This record gives sequence, C-alpha cells and structure tokens, in this order.
Amino acid sequence: MKLYEYEAFPHPRRVRMFLAEKGLDVPRVQVDVPAGEHRQPAFLAKNPDGAVPVLELDGGECITETTAISRYFEEVQPKRPLFGESPESKAAIEMWQRRVEQSLMAAVGSYFHHATEGLGDAGRYRNRDWGEKNRETALEGMRSLNEQLAGNTYVAGADFSVADITALCALDFAKALGIVIPEGCDSLRRWYEEVSARPSASA
Amino acid sequence: MKLYEYEAFPHPRRVRMFLAEKGLDVPRVQVDVPAGEHRQPAFLAKNPDGAVPVLELDGGECITETTAISRYFEEVQPKRPLFGESPESKAAIEMWQRRVEQSLMAAVGSYFHHATEGLGDAGRYRNRDWGEKNRETALEGMRSLNEQLAGNTYVAGADFSVADITALCALDFAKALGIVIPEGCDSLRRWYEEVSARPSASA
Repeated sequence: MKLYEYEAFPHPRRVRMFLAEKGLDVPRVQVDVPAGEHRQPAFLAKNPDGAVPVLELDGGECITETTAISRYFEEVQPKRPLFGESPESKAAIEMWQRRVEQSLMAAVGSYFHHATEGLGDAGRYRNRDWGEKNRETALEGMRSLNEQLAGNTYVAGADFSVADITALCALDFAKALGIVIPEGCDSLRRWYEEVSARPSASA
Repeated sequence: MKLYEYEAFPHPRRVRMFLAEKGLDVPRVQVDVPAGEHRQPAFLAKNPDGAVPVLELDGGECITETTAISRYFEEVQPKRPLFGESPESKAAIEMWQRRVEQSLMAAVGSYFHHATEGLGDAGRYRNRDWGEKNRETALEGMRSLNEQLAGNTYVAGADFSVADITALCALDFAKALGIVIPEGCDSLRRWYEEVSARPSASA
C-alpha cells in the first residue's frame, strides 16, 4: 500500500493527520506537483483528476478523494473511531464534515485557484470574481463554525472527529493565504489552539 | 422522525430514492421553497443553510446534507447496503459518490444558480461566466462517467450503490435544464435507461 501525496498541500495533510490519530503508518510517495508530475500519464493512470492524495492498495486499485481514503482506514482500523459510532453520531459527523468541506475547505481552495496565482498553471480557467466571493464564503464559514463551537468542544459535538481534521487543515490553508479567523470568533480560536496542539497536527 | 423536503428538487429525490431502495418509509413534510419558506426563521432553526432535505430525528436533532441523511438510514437499516460492505467497496463507493457529486451534481447546481434564473431570488450573488463553465464541467463529468460505465455495470463497480442514485438524480436535473448526455456516451445511456427503470427512480 502506498499513499501518493504532496506534503505541503492541505488535503494530503488531512490524511496524514487522520493516520496519526489512528496510530497508523503508511509508506508515502511524494508527487512533484510544482514540476507538473500530477499531469503526467503515469500519475493520471492512478487518478484521472490529477490530484493528490491517492491511496494505491496492494492489488493496484487506486482510491482518490481524501474522505474516501480516510474512510478506508477507519474500516480497516475501527479503533479510535473518527467517523462516529452510533447512527446519530455518524450522521452528525458526516453533516459537519461536508459543511466544513464546502463552506471552508472548498471555499479557500476556490479562492486559491481563482483569485491568486494558484498552482501557476497558465492554461487553467480562472474567474477572479468567483475567487473573491469564495473568500467571503470562507469567512462566513468561520463565523458559523464559531457559533457551533460556542456550545460544543469539537466541530461535530463532544468527540474529536474527522470534521475537526478537515477544519484545522482548512483554517491553516486559509491562514497561509492571508484569510484569518475574524475578530470576535473566540470559540473558534479556543478550538484552533487546542486542536493545533495535538501531536497529529504536525504529522 | 420527519423528512423536510421539496419534492421537485434533485437532493430530496436522492433521499426518497435511497429510502425506496432500502424499503423504508418516513413521514415527509413539504417546505414551500418557491414561497420562500426555507428562508423563514422556523426552517432556519432546523437548517441554518436554508436548504432541503432536512431529517428531524425524534429527539429534535436535525441532520442536513443528503449523504449524511442517507448514511443515517444505512446505519439504522444495514440490510441491502448502498454504501458498500468491505473496506475496499466502502472506499470505492465514497470515492465515486464524491466524484459524481462534484463533477456532475454540484456542477449542474452551479449552472442552475449562476447561469439561469435559478430559484429567482433576486438578492443572490450570480456569476454567469462561472455558471457557463460549470455546464462544461457537467458535460465532462458525463464523459468520465461513460468511461467508467464502459467497464462496470454500476457507477462504483458491480453493485448498485448510493453513487448510482446521485448520478441518476444529477442527470435528470441536468436534462431538465437542457444539458443532455453527449453523443457517443452509449455506456452512460445504457446505464441511464436501466437505472431509470428501477421502481425507486419514481419514488
């Protein structure tokens, strides 16, 4: 089994943090994204979307999409569950995972690809106004998360989950692009400091 | 338990089709979206995003996000699994569910909201160029799905899954907006006809 990634990117970090929380270790292969390796036929055969991370299973089958890869590890190593245990907690975690992915992670990604130089790939479609709009969406996402965290220890409730991993990686991605937690979001800031201090955050 | 929906919309249809495949029946409440009921405080208390479907559990807790709602039902009724059984099939289904959601369902939704009159809500941000770009993304998503279905009976492999439900509802949503399966996508067309004939497709 091999995990194809590019260490500096937010989505591979989500998988590394997930593995660290589970106490799992998987051999990692760096894909040289700045040099365009993700657009070469060898990598496109693993993921036609040309994106990292990709998990190659021992049989050669490739799993793409960060949450699908994380779920695979949850299934093979159910101990220390990060996707919940009861039907209610599984549903709540899936709901928050998707909320954070859309209102924060995807929004920051759209800002990066459309309103900044992004990966520098000149041929890529860019829509600056859409990028700027997503900056607002990300800030709005932070305010919503702040409200949720005013009454909950973690993003999806009382227990640390995959949704916390997604939120931390999205916030750090945003921070690197100059989109910072708005004034007054004290609950989000409390949570951010606490989750940043977990050993898995530096995996 | 109550399912808040608006029958004509694609996401509520996904949940109804999921329930029909599972043989489950849940009381449904129509939210009058054209009249703006989804923007009223009573509904926003259930889902701050103002979107249907929402599943209200007996304890009053509300689950939003179509896939989170579907997963809840998968957990309470594991028979006739639609999210897979082995770690490998669960990961593959999650991967395809997300691919279809992004490259097809979300793309058609963005076309609808940005390049057409959408829900007619005048105050909403619109970016026509982004909408038109998403029309192309949706057509590209159909071509990718056609390739996958050239070698597989269903979207995620040999078994019918939640990813087939998402794909069918996205294709019918696209069709209603005049985005039709491109010429030459015979495998996708074969699959579309087969899945459209399932009793759950008219649930």
